[in-house]
Amino acid sequence: MKSLIIASTSTIHGSGPLEYLMDELRVHFKSVNEILFIPYARPGGISHEDYTTNIAKAFSAINISVKGIHQFDNPKKAIENAQGIFTGGGNTFVLVNQLYKNDVLNSIKKAITKGTPYLGTSAGSNICGLTMNTTNDMPIVYPPSFKTLGLVPFNINPHYLDPNPDSKHMGETRETRIKEFHGFNTQPVIGLREGSWIEVKGDHLTLRGKLEARIFEYGKAPYELPTNSDLDFLK
Amino acid sequence: MKSLIIASTSTIHGSGPLEYLMDELRVHFKSVNEILFIPYARPGGISHEDYTTNIAKAFSAINISVKGIHQFDNPKKAIENAQGIFTGGGNTFVLVNQLYKNDVLNSIKKAITKGTPYLGTSAGSNICGLTMNTTNDMPIVYPPSFKTLGLVPFNINPHYLDPNPDSKHMGETRETRIKEFHGFNTQPVIGLREGSWIEVKGDHLTLRGKLEARIFEYGKAPYELPTNSDLDFLK
Repeated sequence: MKSLIIASTSTIHGSGPLEYLMDELRVHFKSVNEILFIPYARPGGISHEDYTTNIAKAFSAINISVKGIHQFDNPKKAIENAQGIFTGGGNTFVLVNQLYKNDVLNSIKKAITKGTPYLGTSAGSNICGLTMNTTNDMPIVYPPSFKTLGLVPFNINPHYLDPNPDSKHMGETRETRIKEFHGFNTQPVIGLREGSWIEVKGDHLTLRGKLEARIFEYGKAPYELPTNSDLDFLK
Repeated sequence: MKSLIIASTSTIHGSGPLEYLMDELRVHFKSVNEILFIPYARPGGISHEDYTTNIAKAFSAINISVKGIHQFDNPKKAIENAQGIFTGGGNTFVLVNQLYKNDVLNSIKKAITKGTPYLGTSAGSNICGLTMNTTNDMPIVYPPSFKTLGLVPFNINPHYLDPNPDSKHMGETRETRIKEFHGFNTQPVIGLREGSWIEVKGDHLTLRGKLEARIFEYGKAPYELPTNSDLDFLK
């Protein structure tokens, strides 16, 4: 049975990495001793090694060890054999480019489909959607495609931000950007605020965390969805 | 002689479209009766027609008429014959995709090189750099390449924003994003604040407007450059 936590962010303001999710992760990864970490998104350009060390520190709180995918000669085999998988945040373009380069997107999808528990945060959540077209990241590398895992039947916009009425900046709001997305694409987009996540259990999707999510369906006005809502209707 | 205005934004807070630039544009386009407008970036998904109408209204202040490139059967010929060219802001991915689709990047470069005065704002400025890898826009379509006009020997980050110390949002600052860019690319990036522009006269580049720009050179700490500085050293 598929089992995923697709989180807006790894860290919420004023607390440590994954701290707000730890109780969930204890349950999510209850039968896991070691997690395979995919550090490809390299936030701030951090090395795979250093990123993995930071994540290992966070998971030590629940007695789970962490190994980075870069430590394995064969990344496909590493995914196949993983007890649990975590893809961390950073730059989605860098992440997706590296996933294509190592040809592991299918391996991740297969592992998750056969039941390997998965955690994604930020860029690692983006890739669970149909495409990465709703990432907030800067396109610092050109990946072979924007197509991603399609483990949920919509796109994800992590770190969703409400418009700031005091802003004097003439750049687009997040809502405008997603409206522009719907000028060229028809799949729904879920704006996941920091502290929210999507829980996937088999084919059942639920919004979790303390906050509402903002839903953007093609041809409809965007609207708020309360936490603990069923997301199965989004197609 | 090349003659370009490469502006961070079309509009600054509290004033109308292009208003802050009008005195400059009067001089820049002094021998121009009609401008060819490239509306491909479609801000907020606006149609080519409506976008062109809005821009025509702004240019009527200096008695210049505006025709949209979409009104011509042959966009290449339209560029060749243009007295002046303006590419407006919106979504850089949409703009670049359409420029490739219509195969007009070379035509624009040729026209500018032979002396057709050019104005770019936001996305229309981004394309003057070497690549569009430092756009702030959402990747709502997948263009055939991120390579752009290379009319200046660096990349541009329009709408440059300083880090907000009060932010509780865990997304990356602009500075972090550009640092990440330099993990994979070596060309300089100029962070152009709203109200700033680059003036190109022949091979001579100058920073204009009231504000400083932030310069990001590979392997160096970012630094501020005062307005009216020569930019010829950036390579």
